Amino acid sequence: MSGEAALLLVLDLIGTFAFGLNGALTAVRAARLDIVGVVTLGMITAMGGGIIRDILLDDLPPATFRDWRYLTAAAAGALIVFAFARPLVRVVGLIELLDAVGLSVFAVSGASKAMGFGIGPAQAVILGVVTAVGGGTLRDALVGRVPTVMRKGLYAIPAFVGAALAVISILIGFKGLTASFVAAAACFLIRVLGLRFSLNAPKPRKVPDPEDPPGED
Amino acid sequence: MSGEAALLLVLDLIGTFAFGLNGALTAVRAARLDIVGVVTLGMITAMGGGIIRDILLDDLPPATFRDWRYLTAAAAGALIVFAFARPLVRVVGLIELLDAVGLSVFAVSGASKAMGFGIGPAQAVILGVVTAVGGGTLRDALVGRVPTVMRKGLYAIPAFVGAALAVISILIGFKGLTASFVAAAACFLIRVLGLRFSLNAPKPRKVPDPEDPPGED
Amino acid sequence: MSGEAALLLVLDLIGTFAFGLNGALTAVRAARLDIVGVVTLGMITAMGGGIIRDILLDDLPPATFRDWRYLTAAAAGALIVFAFARPLVRVVGLIELLDAVGLSVFAVSGASKAMGFGIGPAQAVILGVVTAVGGGTLRDALVGRVPTVMRKGLYAIPAFVGAALAVISILIGFKGLTASFVAAAACFLIRVLGLRFSLNAPKPRKVPDPEDPPGED
Repeated sequence: MSGEAALLLVLDLIGTFAFGLNGALTAVRAARLDIVGVVTLGMITAMGGGIIRDILLDDLPPATFRDWRYLTAAAAGALIVFAFARPLVRVVGLIELLDAVGLSVFAVSGASKAMGFGIGPAQAVILGVVTAVGGGTLRDALVGRVPTVMRKGLYAIPAFVGAALAVISILIGFKGLTASFVAAAACFLIRVLGLRFSLNAPKPRKVPDPEDPPGED
Repeated sequence: MSGEAALLLVLDLIGTFAFGLNGALTAVRAARLDIVGVVTLGMITAMGGGIIRDILLDDLPPATFRDWRYLTAAAAGALIVFAFARPLVRVVGLIELLDAVGLSVFAVSGASKAMGFGIGPAQAVILGVVTAVGGGTLRDALVGRVPTVMRKGLYAIPAFVGAALAVISILIGFKGLTASFVAAAACFLIRVLGLRFSLNAPKPRKVPDPEDPPGED
Repeated sequence: MSGEAALLLVLDLIGTFAFGLNGALTAVRAARLDIVGVVTLGMITAMGGGIIRDILLDDLPPATFRDWRYLTAAAAGALIVFAFARPLVRVVGLIELLDAVGLSVFAVSGASKAMGFGIGPAQAVILGVVTAVGGGTLRDALVGRVPTVMRKGLYAIPAFVGAALAVISILIGFKGLTASFVAAAACFLIRVLGLRFSLNAPKPRKVPDPEDPPGED
C-alpha cells in the first residue's frame, strides 16, 4: 500500500470511529436503548452511508461491510459510548470535530469512488453526500425523529461542497491526494464554521397542514 | 426512440415531477424542514419506489438514478415547492391529479419492467405497487409518521389493480401501449374516485395494546 | 430434495408464517392501519430481514422474494391477523413461541447462507442476526416507534448466540443438520427464558439530552 492510500485509509477509519461514537451518543440521548440498540445505531451511523452508496453503485457486498477494520472501528466507537456515555457528553465539542473529519473524508471518498464507477458527475456528488449523511439519517429515522440533517445546522451542505469539489477536480484532471485534501478541507471548514456560529440552511415559509393536524397521527 | 417509447418516457417524467412536487409538499406540511430536507424528501418520494424495485430486480445502478432526466424532474418538483409552498397549497387538487398520473404510470411501468426481468407474476405485481408507493412510504417514515398509504385513502389498491392488469395483459399476450393505457387508466380512475368520495380501505377491528401503551414510547 | 433440506424448508416456512402473524399483530396494536398496512407490515416483518441479508450478499433478486412459498406464508400470516386480530390476542403466548422458532431458524440459516458466500465469520454472524431481527426493525420504524429489539427484552442476543454457534460449527467442520439444530436450540432456549423471566439486555446510564429536549421534535 502506498503512503497516500495508507493515509486515506487511516482518515477513513478515524471517520468511521467518530461516526460510531457520535451516532451512538446521539442515539443514547434521544431514546432509551439497551446495549443492542446502542451498538446497532452506532454501527449504522458509521457504515450506513457507505452501504447505501455501494448498493446504488452495485459494489456488493459493501466495501465497509467486507472489511473487518471498518466493522471494528464502528463497533469500538459504539461500545465506548455504551461504557462511558456520561463523561463523553463533556467532550462533545471534541467529538463534533472528529465527526466533521468523518463527514469531510466520507463526502470526498464517496464521490471519488462513484466517479471511478463511471457514473455521471451529478450522481457522483449525490453519492458523496449520501456516504456522508446517510448513516445519520438512518439512525434518526430508527429512533423516530425527523433526521437532524433535514432540519437544522449545516451538515449536508458542507458535504455537498466537498463532494462537488472532488468531482470537479477529477473532471479537470487535478487528481491525487492534494485535490482530495482541498475538497475535504473546504467541507471541514464550512462544517466547523456552521457549528461555531450556529448557522442553518434556509427554510421554506411555514405552510399549514389542514389535512393532517399534528394531533391526529 | 419510437413514438410509443417517447410517450411513455414523457409520462414517466411527468409522474416523477409530480411525485417530487407532492412529496416535498407533504414533507413541508408535516415537519419543519430546511432546504436540504425538502429537496431530499421530494427526490426520495419521486425516485424511492423505482430504486427499491431496481435493487430487488438486481438492475443496479437504479435506472432512475442513472438517468439525469429523472434526477432533474424530481429535483425541479422539490425546488418549486421550496420556493412556492404557499401558493401551491391552493392548487393541491391539481397536484393530486398529477400525482394520480404518476401513481398509474409507475404501477404499470414498474410491473411491466419486472415481467421483463423474468420474475414471477405475483412478484411483478408487488414490484409495480412498490414502484408506485415505495417513495411516499420512505418519505413518511423519514418525517416520523405512519405512512399514509398504510392507513387511509385508496393509494396502494389502485396501484395494485393497475399493476395486476399490466401483468395479466402481458401473460395473455395483449402487449403494447394500448394494454398499458388500459391498466394505467383503471388505476387512475380508482384513485380519483377514492379522492372524490374519500374512500378508505377496510380496517381491522380495534385491538388493545396492553404491552406497549401509547404513552410509553 | 433431501429429507434434511425439506425439514429446513418447512422450519423456514413456519418461521416466515409466524413472523407474518406476529409482525402484523404488533403493527395492528401499535398503529391504526388499514388492510394495506397490515399486510404490508406483516410481509415486511416476515421477509425484510432475509431481503436485507441478500442485498448485502449480492444474491439478488432476494431468495425469499423469488420463492412464491415464502410470499404465500408471509401473506397468509398477515391476512389471518387482519381477519382474526381479536381472538389472536388471546393466544399471544403461542404466537410468541412460534416467533421464537422463526427467530432461531432465521439466525442459523442466515448465518449459514452467509458463510456459503465466502464472507468473513464476523460478517456472517451479523447477517444471521440481521436475517432474524431486520424485518421487525423495519416494521417498528414504519409505525414510528423505536424498534423493540433495540430497547427491551432479549431478541437480538439469542439470535447472536444462534448465529455465532452456527458459524463456529462451520469453522470447526461440524456441519450438517445436527449442528444447525444445536445452534437454533440455543437461540430458542435463551429467547424463551428471556420471555418467561422478562429479562432485558443491559442499558447505558441515563444521559441528559440538552440540545434536543423531548418537546422540541
